[in-house]
Amino acid sequence: MLAMVFDGKAMLKKDYPAPQPSRGEALVAVRLAGVCSTDLEVLKGYMGFTGVMGHEFVGQVVEGPAEWKAKRVVAEINCVCGRCDMCRSGLSNHCRDRTVIGIAGRDGVFAQQVALPAANLHEVPASVSDEQAVFAEPLAAAYQITRQVTFQPSDTVVVLGDGRLGQLVARVLRPMARKLVLVGKHASKLEVAEKQGIETIRVEDFRPQASADVVVEATGSPAGLELAMRAVRPRGKIVLKSTFAAAAGLNLSPLVVDEITVIGSRCGPMDQALAALAGGKVDVSALISRRYPLEQATDALKAAADPRNIKVLIDVR
Amino acid sequence: MLAMVFDGKAMLKKDYPAPQPSRGEALVAVRLAGVCSTDLEVLKGYMGFTGVMGHEFVGQVVEGPAEWKAKRVVAEINCVCGRCDMCRSGLSNHCRDRTVIGIAGRDGVFAQQVALPAANLHEVPASVSDEQAVFAEPLAAAYQITRQVTFQPSDTVVVLGDGRLGQLVARVLRPMARKLVLVGKHASKLEVAEKQGIETIRVEDFRPQASADVVVEATGSPAGLELAMRAVRPRGKIVLKSTFAAAAGLNLSPLVVDEITVIGSRCGPMDQALAALAGGKVDVSALISRRYPLEQATDALKAAADPRNIKVLIDVR
Repeated sequence: MLAMVFDGKAMLKKDYPAPQPSRGEALVAVRLAGVCSTDLEVLKGYMGFTGVMGHEFVGQVVEGPAEWKAKRVVAEINCVCGRCDMCRSGLSNHCRDRTVIGIAGRDGVFAQQVALPAANLHEVPASVSDEQAVFAEPLAAAYQITRQVTFQPSDTVVVLGDGRLGQLVARVLRPMARKLVLVGKHASKLEVAEKQGIETIRVEDFRPQASADVVVEATGSPAGLELAMRAVRPRGKIVLKSTFAAAAGLNLSPLVVDEITVIGSRCGPMDQALAALAGGKVDVSALISRRYPLEQATDALKAAADPRNIKVLIDVR
Repeated sequence: MLAMVFDGKAMLKKDYPAPQPSRGEALVAVRLAGVCSTDLEVLKGYMGFTGVMGHEFVGQVVEGPAEWKAKRVVAEINCVCGRCDMCRSGLSNHCRDRTVIGIAGRDGVFAQQVALPAANLHEVPASVSDEQAVFAEPLAAAYQITRQVTFQPSDTVVVLGDGRLGQLVARVLRPMARKLVLVGKHASKLEVAEKQGIETIRVEDFRPQASADVVVEATGSPAGLELAMRAVRPRGKIVLKSTFAAAAGLNLSPLVVDEITVIGSRCGPMDQALAALAGGKVDVSALISRRYPLEQATDALKAAADPRNIKVLIDVR
C-alpha cells in the first residue's frame, strides 16, 4: 500500500506491506489524516520512531469485530496493555508498555490502511463530517485541560500560541472563563480566532502582569514557559502542552516564590471531542489551511512546518 | 544595636540604628535566630536586598500593643498591605506590595531587636523551647506542602535533599505516606534522619523508577528537578521547594508526556508548626549543628554554607 514512512528520513513508499490486524484489532481504511507538531518532532528523531507516520485521522473499518464493520471511526492513539500499574489504576493513557500510533512502536495513519485495537475506536456520529472528525484527537487534547483544571466563572485565561493546538484550546476554554486572550505571533492566525469571537493579541503587544488565573502554554517554544510565568498570577496555574528543552538558565524560581502550579497535559477524552463537534460547540472549519493527497504527503509535512499554516490535512479518500 | 547587615557584602555593625516600631508594630528582642538557605542567596544578591539579614527567629516583645507585651513570639515573614487583589482573595502571603523580613524591603532578625507588624506575631506555647520555636518558620514551610497536596494513605513519597528543609519535610510527610524515602548526598545528615525512623538512601544508590506519587524537590540544585522528573510516576506530583535557574537544556518534555504536576511551594502555616512542636510531633533537636553568638554572625553564615552542617543558629540571648 501507499504510506508515508519515517526511517531516519521521511519517504513515501508505494509498496509498504498492508497491515495485518491481530486478534482484537480492526483494519481501518484511512479517509483523512491531520499533521500534528508531534509528527514534525518525529522528523527530528522524537521517540526514535520508525514506521508509518501520523496519528490524527478519520477512517472506515474494513475488517475486524462484527460490531465495528463499515463504521466510520476515529481512535485513541495510546494502545495499552491493560495489566500494568497505570492501566490498573485507570491511567491507561500512561500505560508502561504502550505503543502510540505513528509515534512509538506502532505504524500510523499516513497510509491507505492502519490496523488498530478495536478497543481504541470511537464511532463518528453521522452529523460530523470527515473534515471535523479529523480534529477529534487534537480537540480531545484541548478538552484534557478541562479534566485537569477546575475553572471558576471569574477566571481569566491566557492561551499562548496561535498554532493548531492553541487555536483549539482557545475555542474549548473560552466559554469557561470570564475573559480569555489568545496570544500569538501571526496576524493571519489570530484573525481566524477573532472570527470565532476569541479575543487575541500579538505577542509583541502583550504585557504580562502576573494576573491570569490560568495560562496555557502551547507555543512549542521554551520562551513560552518564561512568558507564562510572567503572565500567571501568584498561586495560578500554567498548563504545559508543548514539549521542549528549557532555554539555558531559564529561571524557575518564580514557580516557588509565586507558588505556581504547572500541569503537564497530553491526550484527552475523544468522546467529549466528538460530542462537541456533533453539537456544533467547536467550529474547526477555518483551521484547515491546506490539503494534500497521500501521494504528496511530503509536501504536507513541509506545509505543516510553515508557520503561516494552521492545520494541514492528508486526503486518502 | 548589634546587627548583621548586608549591603553588597555581609558586615557586623555595632551601631546599627535600633528599630522604631510604627503604628501597629511591635518591637521584639530577638532571642535565637536560624540561618536559612535564602540568607545564603541574599549574600549572592537575591531580591537585591540590603539591610539586616535573617527571618527565622524566636524573640520576646518589648514594646507594642498591650496584648503582646512580654510575650515570647515567632512571626510570619510576609508583611502585607491588606488591600491588594491577593490580600483580598485570602492569599496575603502573595501580597503585591509585601515586604519580607530580612529578604525584601524590611530589616530582619540577625540583630538585637526587630520591629514587626503585631498582626504577624504568633505566641510560642510555654512548652516549646527557644531551640524548637526557632524552627517554626521553616517547619511551616514544610507543612505548606500538606495544604497543597492531598496525600493518600497508599502514597509513596520521595524527598530529594537532606539539608535543613528536606529534613523537616521528611519529618512532616512521613506519617502521611505509606512509604517515604529521603534522598541525600551526606551520610551524616541521612543518619540524623534515620534516627527519626526515616528511610534514607544516598543519591548515588537511588534508582528512580517513575514510581513515586509525590516527589519533593528540596536540593537547591537544578539537577534536583531532573531527578524528580525521573522519580515521579506519570500523573504524579513534584513539589518544588528550592529556587534555581534551570540547567542549560533541561528537558521539560516529561512533564507533558507523563502529565506531571509541579507545585511551587513557599511559606506555610506557623500555627500548625507551633502546634506540632508543642505536641512533640516533630523532633528538631538533632538538626542543630552549630550555634554562634550574634557577634560571630559572619561565622554563622559561613557554617551554614558548609554542607556538613544542617541548621546553624545565632544566639542573641
